[in-house]
Amino acid sequence: MSLTLQTSQPEQTAFETALQSAIDSKTKPVGSLGRIEELAAQIARAQGVLQPRAETCSLTIFAADHGLAASGVSAFPQDVTRAMVHNFLAGGAAATVFAKSLNAAVQVVDAGVAGDRIRHPDLLDRHIAAGTNNAIDEAAMTMTNCEKALEAGFQIGRQVDSDVACFGEMGIGNTSAASLVSAKILGHEISGLVGRGTGLDHDGLTRKQTLLQRAAARTSLKLAPKTALAEYGGFEIAMMAGAMIGASRRRRIVMVDGFIASAAALAARELAPGCETAFIYAHASAEAGHRLLLDALNADPLLKFDMRLGEGTGAILAWPLVKAAAAMLSDMATFESAQVSTQIEDTSA
Amino acid sequence: MSLTLQTSQPEQTAFETALQSAIDSKTKPVGSLGRIEELAAQIARAQGVLQPRAETCSLTIFAADHGLAASGVSAFPQDVTRAMVHNFLAGGAAATVFAKSLNAAVQVVDAGVAGDRIRHPDLLDRHIAAGTNNAIDEAAMTMTNCEKALEAGFQIGRQVDSDVACFGEMGIGNTSAASLVSAKILGHEISGLVGRGTGLDHDGLTRKQTLLQRAAARTSLKLAPKTALAEYGGFEIAMMAGAMIGASRRRRIVMVDGFIASAAALAARELAPGCETAFIYAHASAEAGHRLLLDALNADPLLKFDMRLGEGTGAILAWPLVKAAAAMLSDMATFESAQVSTQIEDTSA
Repeated sequence: MSLTLQTSQPEQTAFETALQSAIDSKTKPVGSLGRIEELAAQIARAQGVLQPRAETCSLTIFAADHGLAASGVSAFPQDVTRAMVHNFLAGGAAATVFAKSLNAAVQVVDAGVAGDRIRHPDLLDRHIAAGTNNAIDEAAMTMTNCEKALEAGFQIGRQVDSDVACFGEMGIGNTSAASLVSAKILGHEISGLVGRGTGLDHDGLTRKQTLLQRAAARTSLKLAPKTALAEYGGFEIAMMAGAMIGASRRRRIVMVDGFIASAAALAARELAPGCETAFIYAHASAEAGHRLLLDALNADPLLKFDMRLGEGTGAILAWPLVKAAAAMLSDMATFESAQVSTQIEDTSA
Repeated sequence: MSLTLQTSQPEQTAFETALQSAIDSKTKPVGSLGRIEELAAQIARAQGVLQPRAETCSLTIFAADHGLAASGVSAFPQDVTRAMVHNFLAGGAAATVFAKSLNAAVQVVDAGVAGDRIRHPDLLDRHIAAGTNNAIDEAAMTMTNCEKALEAGFQIGRQVDSDVACFGEMGIGNTSAASLVSAKILGHEISGLVGRGTGLDHDGLTRKQTLLQRAAARTSLKLAPKTALAEYGGFEIAMMAGAMIGASRRRRIVMVDGFIASAAALAARELAPGCETAFIYAHASAEAGHRLLLDALNADPLLKFDMRLGEGTGAILAWPLVKAAAAMLSDMATFESAQVSTQIEDTSA
């Protein structure tokens, strides 16, 4: 499942030169499209072509439950995960409304929702188990189940047939899981990575801090990525990490959503170095800890909209920017083709 | 051409209450969509409905030349304006490529390009004159021509039949014109509003500062908006200001692009108080002075992409965000309709 770049150094240098030249030949002053030029260059590199495409987009939402929800780390009861799966399937949730509005296909995956198995013709059933164990006091899942989730995700990612892949998640308690997974992969104290999730008040946050300290104390400060996922992850987080790797391998652009998706991106990058060339960070979440995680990932998301919902909402909102950036490089006229003067006027007159 | 809001205070209060209740009933924790919720509320207010629409978008690009370009305030020769009009019409420019990519219709307007009249079946001919006078030493245009430009723009704005109207501009030298118009309307020293435009180097910037100081010294520190436009504006800036007012009056959402469009928005707001309820600021430009202007407009643009091209590029890039925000309010399920629990779990257990 590793992803290795197979281009040689001289090939890469030649590609970079041709890429910069292509961007600078467009009918605009050099550098005047700022961040869009950087984005276009990244898409071109990820696809390995000078005329990249980002014409189509899909959103895959992974849903699963978390044993640690029983300890009261979230403001919402666990059955909201299941209800939201139905809401996604009916198209009524924020991410699915955005996807429809911005013309992206939606796929919903049961990675391990608690309770009875959900039966629905549009649901992709990759159910690993009916939620994880409570990671406050024991490993969230077995290594076997962690590997099953990664592999299922990898296959889903490989089968993405849109140019751009957005990955979202739903799982009551999963900001806690993401905080723990990130802290353990980075070898960072948990305290800096804990926030209010989607709706905790002050007392709830204090309680969550105490519980996550207890959970973190069960294992070493730093863990291997797969161990971190097995000890603290959710099935949806592991599956998303696998999907990010799979989609990268297919040279799809991967839109990384918010805090939880960033934790999956961190795991993916550790598991398959190089896959991150395909990652575009969409949204800097309001969740405390996301800034720390983004710094570790050397990421500066496109949007800063103070959202804290997940589901892939940030990823979907940012995808038209990627579409336009690719079009810039593929479709804009050059100074030559448009016969626009590049001559700098003599301003000494 | 004035725009007066005709709703009474109790009606407004009832609308605001219903609006907040509609946003909070959606299947997401209260406030969890951050900036998108604010945006949805603004669109609803501008359209005066609780189920707003931002399904369609158009881009109107106003082109005109500036007498002050002859003094060397721009890095590019004046004939670039004309060449870019042809580039817009051929669909090869950044803004038109973005518009095609993001499914917005394009209209190009000759507001006053220098040289022979441009003949093209797709060009909207609202040519006032073959460029303005050199505003460094004399009024850019007569008050009659300023009013003709405003009125032509107003009619264009009124005829926008898309939900969202993006306005762009092209005119070599028009960052200088925008700096002067803004400084005079705000009653602000010109120095804080002068920047590199699309491509000036250090010496070019120093020269531009000196020239614009000379231009500003011709008149009082603060001018009435129409006088500021006549003394220093371009035909494209005045026409855009008129179009913003006209589109607002038709309850279209107006996407305000970068520095030059912000100067037009400032003039529009002064000429027709109330029209700014329709304005959504798209992009914080890299142009020095835009921050000052945005602060005066109390605006915090959606995107910060370090662009400095104009043409409506920022407006077009931001419009899908507006589309998605309107869809959020109009199409998302409510907790009731989706049967999602709002019950906050008892975390004291």
